Amino acid sequence: MAAPEIEQLIQLLSKLPGLGPRSARRAALHLVKKKEVLLAPLAQALARVESNVKTCSVCGNIDAADPCEICTDTRRDDSIICVVQDVSDLWALERSGNFKGRYHVLGGTLSALDGIGPEDLKIDTLVQRASDEAVKEVILATSATVDGQTTAHYIADCLENCNVQISGLAHGVPVGGELDYLDDGTLSAAMSARHPMS
Amino acid sequence: MAAPEIEQLIQLLSKLPGLGPRSARRAALHLVKKKEVLLAPLAQALARVESNVKTCSVCGNIDAADPCEICTDTRRDDSIICVVQDVSDLWALERSGNFKGRYHVLGGTLSALDGIGPEDLKIDTLVQRASDEAVKEVILATSATVDGQTTAHYIADCLENCNVQISGLAHGVPVGGELDYLDDGTLSAAMSARHPMS
Repeated sequence: MAAPEIEQLIQLLSKLPGLGPRSARRAALHLVKKKEVLLAPLAQALARVESNVKTCSVCGNIDAADPCEICTDTRRDDSIICVVQDVSDLWALERSGNFKGRYHVLGGTLSALDGIGPEDLKIDTLVQRASDEAVKEVILATSATVDGQTTAHYIADCLENCNVQISGLAHGVPVGGELDYLDDGTLSAAMSARHPMS
Repeated sequence: MAAPEIEQLIQLLSKLPGLGPRSARRAALHLVKKKEVLLAPLAQALARVESNVKTCSVCGNIDAADPCEICTDTRRDDSIICVVQDVSDLWALERSGNFKGRYHVLGGTLSALDGIGPEDLKIDTLVQRASDEAVKEVILATSATVDGQTTAHYIADCLENCNVQISGLAHGVPVGGELDYLDDGTLSAAMSARHPMS
């Protein structure tokens, strides 16, 4: 139908999360129409990411440097490691700007259904890092899903012999959230973790 | 936050239709994770489209050749020109597979609000093409919106002096559509264009 070059571009774009075949077609057309301002820069940006970006061998973050900027930042606190499932979670926590320790990216969660076992996640390197005397606390910031919490419990067991405090994120009402729209689990968690207002 | 290479990729991806800042971030992460199977081929596909794909000087379609494949296909009927707003509409009609004439891409619709006048669309080249003796019919396949229909009427006026039959797409119930969900305009159009079933 369209030129094979365009068909191939559509096919590749449709593999991106959030784009189906129809929206990939729209995106391809948009790119062809904006050759100078969008298509050419995007091709260059992809080539640059391809050659420069790598996975940090310490924490699993992706960055232009290895070890990554977060691992080499001397202003950060070496004594706390925050364990996250994925790089996107690391980015989300960095955006919130509250945490100034180090990270450890697991690369997923344990999942019996998908056949993901402990050996598929970077748990052994985490135990290794947590065994360092400098580390005082490990925050298990996996998702509040069944798989995420199973993974957190499994990791807590693995870290038993390390001399670290293990903590998890607080559950409760999201900031800006209306009670009416919240699920029962969140509400009951928020109720039992209620605190005195003074 | 992330490496500047990734930030730039996210920023460019977020300019694609259908992707916002959040989904662009997900897409960028997905690309970095699938470097070999997705990122590299996508960079190559974009570069290939950038250097090969051009706009057909006859009909306004985009293709690797100029004039495009549709304009040079000798099996197609020279006597009918189908006028569409955009290349995506041409693709949609080609997918339906029913039309075997030539196309003419206007590049938009007349729009007082957006300040798009007749000189911004390829109307003069259409009149030129329609003046050819071989052309017997011009199908105005612009959208069934106010702007689309205004444009169709304007073009019909422009083609008055050309010796061609001017036609429009039929309005009615979409195939597979349920009456209950259709708007009043479509239903009344379908009712007044009813036909005897024999």
